[in-house]
Amino acid sequence: MVKIKYGCSMLTEDLLEKMEPLLTEAQRWLEGLRKAKEVGFMDLPYRDPSPALELARRMKETTDTLVLIGIGGSSLGAECVMQATGKSKGFYVLDNVDPEKLSWVLSSIDPRRCCFNVVSKSGSTTETVVNFFVVKSILERHMSWGELKKRLVITTDPEKGFLRELAIKENIASLEVPPNVGGRFSVLSDVGLFPAAYMGVDVGALLEGARLALDYCSKPSLTENPAWVLTAFHYFHYRGGKNIAVMMPYCERLSLFVDWWRQLWAESLGKNGCGQTPVKAIGTVDQHSQIQLYNDGPKDKVITFIVVNSMSHDFTLDENIPEAFAYLRAKTLSEVLKASYLGTASALYKNGVPFITVEIEELNERSLGMLFMIYEMATALSGYLYNLNPFDQPGVEEGKRLTKGLLGYAGLEEKAKEALDIDAFHAKYVICM
Amino acid sequence: MVKIKYGCSMLTEDLLEKMEPLLTEAQRWLEGLRKAKEVGFMDLPYRDPSPALELARRMKETTDTLVLIGIGGSSLGAECVMQATGKSKGFYVLDNVDPEKLSWVLSSIDPRRCCFNVVSKSGSTTETVVNFFVVKSILERHMSWGELKKRLVITTDPEKGFLRELAIKENIASLEVPPNVGGRFSVLSDVGLFPAAYMGVDVGALLEGARLALDYCSKPSLTENPAWVLTAFHYFHYRGGKNIAVMMPYCERLSLFVDWWRQLWAESLGKNGCGQTPVKAIGTVDQHSQIQLYNDGPKDKVITFIVVNSMSHDFTLDENIPEAFAYLRAKTLSEVLKASYLGTASALYKNGVPFITVEIEELNERSLGMLFMIYEMATALSGYLYNLNPFDQPGVEEGKRLTKGLLGYAGLEEKAKEALDIDAFHAKYVICM
Repeated sequence: MVKIKYGCSMLTEDLLEKMEPLLTEAQRWLEGLRKAKEVGFMDLPYRDPSPALELARRMKETTDTLVLIGIGGSSLGAECVMQATGKSKGFYVLDNVDPEKLSWVLSSIDPRRCCFNVVSKSGSTTETVVNFFVVKSILERHMSWGELKKRLVITTDPEKGFLRELAIKENIASLEVPPNVGGRFSVLSDVGLFPAAYMGVDVGALLEGARLALDYCSKPSLTENPAWVLTAFHYFHYRGGKNIAVMMPYCERLSLFVDWWRQLWAESLGKNGCGQTPVKAIGTVDQHSQIQLYNDGPKDKVITFIVVNSMSHDFTLDENIPEAFAYLRAKTLSEVLKASYLGTASALYKNGVPFITVEIEELNERSLGMLFMIYEMATALSGYLYNLNPFDQPGVEEGKRLTKGLLGYAGLEEKAKEALDIDAFHAKYVICM
Repeated sequence: MVKIKYGCSMLTEDLLEKMEPLLTEAQRWLEGLRKAKEVGFMDLPYRDPSPALELARRMKETTDTLVLIGIGGSSLGAECVMQATGKSKGFYVLDNVDPEKLSWVLSSIDPRRCCFNVVSKSGSTTETVVNFFVVKSILERHMSWGELKKRLVITTDPEKGFLRELAIKENIASLEVPPNVGGRFSVLSDVGLFPAAYMGVDVGALLEGARLALDYCSKPSLTENPAWVLTAFHYFHYRGGKNIAVMMPYCERLSLFVDWWRQLWAESLGKNGCGQTPVKAIGTVDQHSQIQLYNDGPKDKVITFIVVNSMSHDFTLDENIPEAFAYLRAKTLSEVLKASYLGTASALYKNGVPFITVEIEELNERSLGMLFMIYEMATALSGYLYNLNPFDQPGVEEGKRLTKGLLGYAGLEEKAKEALDIDAFHAKYVICM
């Protein structure tokens, strides 16, 4: 069971009533895009997952470690799934082009026991092809290309791009990213499902949770529709000047869920001079780091807490701990964690900081699937309210051009010059130590 | 060598000149606090580290794994040191009271081979005593209290508090947090030095780096003093409405440095309705998550990039990779990483986003010690500019009282009632799925 409590969100009944027509419009717009097959993420939970499941089963016959080569929307979802379901052991991600990270991963694995899943919607993401080429070249010292190919799974566009051409030409096992599903909305496609199935995650329950959430997200009422409440909460406060959105789970297993959401929120809604900056915090750790600022700093934030009621392990404090800590006697760690959340949230409320709480009975595949879909829906609907396209990301292109120019991409020599000029100007003011 | 480039920080020469008198005042104020022994962090690099070093050496004789029980300022510095120097293997931290995390740590260690370092300045941090009591009770099933005591190191106030009393009464090995050094400024005290020494970090070089940085931080000129430039950069832009400060290293080994800085910055300067919210980003990963927002969203941010010139490992791309990626041929991963930074930074500059770059020749103990001290100095000086006390944290107290009330602390029954009332109100508006 998942609950969203919003009594302390500062959303008044009056305000909610005023927002319903706008949300109804947004919902109609999104439904239209879905019917026109322009937007596909809402259809993912109804697709047949068996190609990913079957391939995972087959790969598991000869390997026991999964190395995912992908970045951003191609990796964050899978990483989140493994952490939240406790299936991270034997799962590695090569996202960054940090050579020290690559070296660490290579020294941690036995390549002969690995399956390599190369994931890129476009098929040409720089980090992903770089990591793929380097890994390929290193592995070919240990095995033939024929041997290596048997351990490869390519997840990319069904028709276009370098990786699709490679899969076809070399007869490499492959899966598809539907063209109408962007990377950050793709966790419930083969992008997330193949790694999940390989690692032993219950993919059926993940999709079932997403379908259940979609049912709730189609209800035309703010008192019943979770995506509407989340959309209204952020929109209202952003308009009121709160340009920072904190997500703070009191559960370490949800740490990477926040990273998944950070991309979803920032890349979908950060455009046209608009956009709330997502911030990651973890309870209770960040009570000792960020809570001073949240309580006493500027009123520029809204907070989403996530709490999990039933933990998979727990510990109880002894009856005989010293008198000074009598209040902790016979308490469980879960109780201390929950009291910490409520104490922290209450202090913030008293200081006028609006918050919403997502309360999860048990963190498992089903509730995780629900969370994914609720937040994807809220993000898409928010795009309509902010009057922008939540499915594109034009603001990353110039950086890519400048980077490619610097690396010597033919035709981008001017971009290289531009970047080098900026660097020279930057280095004009410098302190050397 | 460490360089701070600030050509793209939008700090003009004219502006810098105007700020020097204010920074001179701030420096005088801080120097006064140091001389009056009210503020001690600047003295730490000159203290004799041998008690921590000697104790670490002794503990290593009978154990090979370190479990640090502490949270916030008691753990973030040590975690950062281990990650940055590559000495994390066999180092565990119990900070959160998340029972699943505790369970994971307990299942990863062999208690008979562990040294347990319990760290709390006050000696009564809830998370720390809770984790300590639970671990103690579990370990006493495997060994006597006498055996366990031999594996304990307590780091706390030299005279006061529960942990100090325990250390004295039970004759447990102990170290000191100087009373005039707050948790978030304590990484170069025994709080950080004992774990560092235990894990094989070159403590001498760490302190040497900090001393070197202090020399630069005493120079009375914006063209030479790194702390002054960082202070001016943040202050000027915060006054101009940029309430978000992003720190984005292009080096995974600095990921936890950002967490250390987040606490330092937020808890020191987030008060009196003022404060810039620190945000963590990692290059290149967050290019695929946050850069859309940074380029195209509101102009509410300043960015600090950190780049490392010389990596401890590197990889070179083959000459024969496909024609479509000709621009990557024979490039090293370091080159791709550096071009990604410069391309990203240049695009941001073109979009009017101010940034500063900290360029580190080699990330090691010495340069890390420099970074610690430069940022501690900048934080302290910023406190003067914002007209607040950077060394207290009054905004966390109410949350602690409400939490303790909820846990049944005698005398805080009213606080429990208050929190429960807020919870009931919160639950009045709820969506159940």
